[in-house]
Amino acid sequence: MIIHLKASVNASQAKDLAQSHAAILFKQEDQHILVTSSKVKELPQLLTDFTDAFFPMESDIQLASRNYQKTLREIQIGNQVIGGNSNHTMMITGPCSIESWEQIKASAELLREYNLKTLRAGCFKPRTSPYTFQGLGAKGLEMLVKIREEYGYNIITEVKDSTHVDLVIEHADIIQIGAKAMYDQSILRKCGQTNKPILLKRGFGSTLQEFVQAAEFILSQGNRNVMLCERGIRTFETKTRFTYDLCGVAFLKEHTNLPIVLDPSHALGHRYGIADLTRASVAMGVEGLLIESHPHPEKAQSDPAQQLNFDEFRAMFKTLRPVASAIGRTII
Amino acid sequence: MIIHLKASVNASQAKDLAQSHAAILFKQEDQHILVTSSKVKELPQLLTDFTDAFFPMESDIQLASRNYQKTLREIQIGNQVIGGNSNHTMMITGPCSIESWEQIKASAELLREYNLKTLRAGCFKPRTSPYTFQGLGAKGLEMLVKIREEYGYNIITEVKDSTHVDLVIEHADIIQIGAKAMYDQSILRKCGQTNKPILLKRGFGSTLQEFVQAAEFILSQGNRNVMLCERGIRTFETKTRFTYDLCGVAFLKEHTNLPIVLDPSHALGHRYGIADLTRASVAMGVEGLLIESHPHPEKAQSDPAQQLNFDEFRAMFKTLRPVASAIGRTII
Amino acid sequence: MIIHLKASVNASQAKDLAQSHAAILFKQEDQHILVTSSKVKELPQLLTDFTDAFFPMESDIQLASRNYQKTLREIQIGNQVIGGNSNHTMMITGPCSIESWEQIKASAELLREYNLKTLRAGCFKPRTSPYTFQGLGAKGLEMLVKIREEYGYNIITEVKDSTHVDLVIEHADIIQIGAKAMYDQSILRKCGQTNKPILLKRGFGSTLQEFVQAAEFILSQGNRNVMLCERGIRTFETKTRFTYDLCGVAFLKEHTNLPIVLDPSHALGHRYGIADLTRASVAMGVEGLLIESHPHPEKAQSDPAQQLNFDEFRAMFKTLRPVASAIGRTII
Amino acid sequence: MIIHLKASVNASQAKDLAQSHAAILFKQEDQHILVTSSKVKELPQLLTDFTDAFFPMESDIQLASRNYQKTLREIQIGNQVIGGNSNHTMMITGPCSIESWEQIKASAELLREYNLKTLRAGCFKPRTSPYTFQGLGAKGLEMLVKIREEYGYNIITEVKDSTHVDLVIEHADIIQIGAKAMYDQSILRKCGQTNKPILLKRGFGSTLQEFVQAAEFILSQGNRNVMLCERGIRTFETKTRFTYDLCGVAFLKEHTNLPIVLDPSHALGHRYGIADLTRASVAMGVEGLLIESHPHPEKAQSDPAQQLNFDEFRAMFKTLRPVASAIGRTII
Repeated sequence: MIIHLKASVNASQAKDLAQSHAAILFKQEDQHILVTSSKVKELPQLLTDFTDAFFPMESDIQLASRNYQKTLREIQIGNQVIGGNSNHTMMITGPCSIESWEQIKASAELLREYNLKTLRAGCFKPRTSPYTFQGLGAKGLEMLVKIREEYGYNIITEVKDSTHVDLVIEHADIIQIGAKAMYDQSILRKCGQTNKPILLKRGFGSTLQEFVQAAEFILSQGNRNVMLCERGIRTFETKTRFTYDLCGVAFLKEHTNLPIVLDPSHALGHRYGIADLTRASVAMGVEGLLIESHPHPEKAQSDPAQQLNFDEFRAMFKTLRPVASAIGRTII
Repeated sequence: MIIHLKASVNASQAKDLAQSHAAILFKQEDQHILVTSSKVKELPQLLTDFTDAFFPMESDIQLASRNYQKTLREIQIGNQVIGGNSNHTMMITGPCSIESWEQIKASAELLREYNLKTLRAGCFKPRTSPYTFQGLGAKGLEMLVKIREEYGYNIITEVKDSTHVDLVIEHADIIQIGAKAMYDQSILRKCGQTNKPILLKRGFGSTLQEFVQAAEFILSQGNRNVMLCERGIRTFETKTRFTYDLCGVAFLKEHTNLPIVLDPSHALGHRYGIADLTRASVAMGVEGLLIESHPHPEKAQSDPAQQLNFDEFRAMFKTLRPVASAIGRTII
Repeated sequence: MIIHLKASVNASQAKDLAQSHAAILFKQEDQHILVTSSKVKELPQLLTDFTDAFFPMESDIQLASRNYQKTLREIQIGNQVIGGNSNHTMMITGPCSIESWEQIKASAELLREYNLKTLRAGCFKPRTSPYTFQGLGAKGLEMLVKIREEYGYNIITEVKDSTHVDLVIEHADIIQIGAKAMYDQSILRKCGQTNKPILLKRGFGSTLQEFVQAAEFILSQGNRNVMLCERGIRTFETKTRFTYDLCGVAFLKEHTNLPIVLDPSHALGHRYGIADLTRASVAMGVEGLLIESHPHPEKAQSDPAQQLNFDEFRAMFKTLRPVASAIGRTII
Repeated sequence: MIIHLKASVNASQAKDLAQSHAAILFKQEDQHILVTSSKVKELPQLLTDFTDAFFPMESDIQLASRNYQKTLREIQIGNQVIGGNSNHTMMITGPCSIESWEQIKASAELLREYNLKTLRAGCFKPRTSPYTFQGLGAKGLEMLVKIREEYGYNIITEVKDSTHVDLVIEHADIIQIGAKAMYDQSILRKCGQTNKPILLKRGFGSTLQEFVQAAEFILSQGNRNVMLCERGIRTFETKTRFTYDLCGVAFLKEHTNLPIVLDPSHALGHRYGIADLTRASVAMGVEGLLIESHPHPEKAQSDPAQQLNFDEFRAMFKTLRPVASAIGRTII
């Protein structure tokens, strides 16, 4: 149950009420909000005098639910807006991993061709083997910061574990929580204590319920700016890297108020169908796209098979705006 | 290996050659064709004098492979064409099950509003319980035939087991092999001996390799008119009925020469996201769509949750043509 | 709901009652039994006068449910018994496919070493490619019949589609319905009209609910002798051929009254772990085991990787009886 | 490739060689060992003079592979031994979560009845919702330490994220890395820098390859004491909580040198079949079992459905030793 406390309740009282009801407490604007387990269906009697409004919920999808907040959340990213009534679809592109200054500079130039503003690149790579390229780390992040200074872009990079979460929160404009870190409560809670936009990737073995509940860990710390990213789930089909769950996206659009970003690159794991899948993703009517591109995919140190080269990206990109237009959206 | 025999080889010789090489033999136009296991990589010496052309293949995706026939197959359905260079996307709609004359008549009228020509309705229902509605059977098929006579539509209905396969092959314009019958070789082979278009649904537990190999059972009997239908696979996610595998569709488009029909209705299992998923399906650039609609879904005897009512269908349909247009296709 | 009609109700009345209540009717000994959808929770008023006893059921797992028949069913196979209070575990072994008289004769001799009585071999193979070995067909079945005459064994072979279902029902002692045919109602219903024991394999993409409901198609035709066979389901893990679902077996033991046969050979798809998995299967306390063995697995025309050679089978078999003993069971 | 450097190579030289070959370096006894990507198939020329022995490997399963170390690793836990030639199967039991002193004390007493020595209880709970019981945290760990002082048991508890990894490494006798933390490199690497035994749980969405590669993160930091724990993977079957992957266990036994611990409690998620599954687990011939038990499961704050009460545990336990005996193992 979500409980809006009265304006007259002060911080210390709110804390006491939270503790005595096993609730999470956070403050939004000037409002103290408690969230208890969704098993609580009736307002506890001791809270009646302190409560402005309360919302019994069906499951622990609470703050993210359309039953609590009916309209799609709006998120400000630099001077761009997605969600709300914007009808914007934000194109995020860049290489899987940042590998050199020349490479990331080339990627930055590609964005400029289409007036795009959001550059992605991994610095801390969640590889499944200890014996492969692990990313440039903090050095990569420094380069991204330089790119921002030079181009004014919003930069987004992934947190894979706790060793660098503070660093990424400090420097990135959007913090990406990687699929393998989706259950990491220490990262989720830290991301809840900033106001920066968070792009939360779905674990490839995670149900939709768990996915949105992971977002609840962030939202219930007070950060309202959470985007959900579908990037493919693991199934019995192995001709493709993962299985892109657009039925799941339909569920998320219907039941949650969180903007959605789609990542067909990781789902497919091959260059050949990215253009089709990206057009399909645009047609789903979502708030963002995350497409891997690389000046020389064949030399990439991670995910070489699925990154588009720049000519492939250009050929695809020019077909996206007509599809967006056909459903009344704008790609930014 | 696919082996085109010389024109000089007569039927009886061809049969002998097939037998002595454990090959399947069929005739296409005036050409005798042998297909052996793909493990055969070099032309058997005894065949050299009889062979016009031969195609070693990587796997038992042979006749369906783009490595054998590079271009998308064209299929004639009544006086409509899909595949080839047509850029047509055929909308198939109608109820899950035919339940009464009034119901199917209403569905036929809905098609007329949009000049659509392909009506679907199940007569023989592959239910998972013996204790539920099993379909109207042959009586339903008769009604469909009457509808065709009255409206000139192409009708499509499902074969679920061998008891009615001959009947459906005789009367339907497109024979649908249901997902649960995908491995049934007796049905596949019978469908290979007609020239009518076959819509082969992917088993929800079937790999893409098995799916296309099921098509090979049909193709290698001489029927060239096979369409593949993706309708969702079974995964750990249960908020939606199945998981719609558009990565798999990307694979099929890249590697096979068979037209593709997409069925988001069975994949999602809920009305709410069908419009979004259908737009995404159109944007994938495929040859057909299969959307369940019903004059009164709430009274439907099967799949009530996922069938669109007519107003929902209309609201969706008018948004599809702009998306199709945006990618250079026409919905027929 | 399962409804036992009174002894006074004659066949023609029973038929009328079935029709007017959309129920399935069958006769067990002298008892007419109706089964309606499990959604029927109260006895229809018109039936009260004709009803001896009735059983509202939670789901369409009805005749197979422990809530209907509390005790494990007993099945007579030749002069052996499994289930009931027997504590017998029947070892079924033999090659994946019957390939020659010498091969099947050798397999028959192996059984004799351990006084085993149940020989398996596939005649009609449900291969996923049309271009590979499809089985010896009716000729294979004839050989099996000869073996029975010579050794007195019970023979079991698989039905893969409708073309040979009558033949197998006529000649085999146990009819195996293959995993790929699990949803085939024409086969299920035909197997319901014999009294021979049926071994129903779980489809690798089938839920437990669907699996038991497939058994209901057989049971509701009057055949009480159904065994359920777990042989692995398809999951994201591909190092092994399938994933052996012993949690599912636990569910089946708890909730159904049907004897269970376990097939680790198809689940693993490799020889190396069969001995461990078979010991684990014995320790699960089930009614049967199905282990593939072959005099020369390396030359087998299907499934060469997973069939034990005879020395491997012997080495394993001698370790099974102590495990069975430890849990109070006997391997027959 | 695994490369054993010569004894003459000093630490600083070893470090230089590691860096110049993108290898991981660790020291085992007095041996410097380098591990490069398994893509390196021939010994780099510059290393020939410094190398004692080298092992090209097929995949990044390297230190854990039977192709590197042929025999099962032996692990010392307190004054008990598992693995190696011991034929010991260690029973680990206790509640899902530590909830009170009385509860954990009762659990400790249960172990004493059977002379068991390894007590589990979760302090930091990786719940999927922020609104439910999150565990007693450090306070729980203190109680476990007290129990050890009093009873001399080995205690095992789970690390779920980085906030408490140091604390658990300091106080527990076995560090459990939870399924949801399996990919967390910061935790894996920290666990590699201690010599305490690590029980690594398989992520429920993780392939066997990834699972063993996660162990490589630990092993390549120099900690040789890693146990692999199978606890069920996520599949389409939802009648049970997860699907217990014993085929995967067969693979791990065949291909890796790491002791294996089996956890049927989390796999099944229900009390009813735990006894059967535990007997099957014993019969698999593994080094450990992890069974949840609780003095009052019905009041448990997490996983109430799957924890055995003490009478159920006792009834089961007395049946395990005969099964272990039958395959030549001893339960400790």
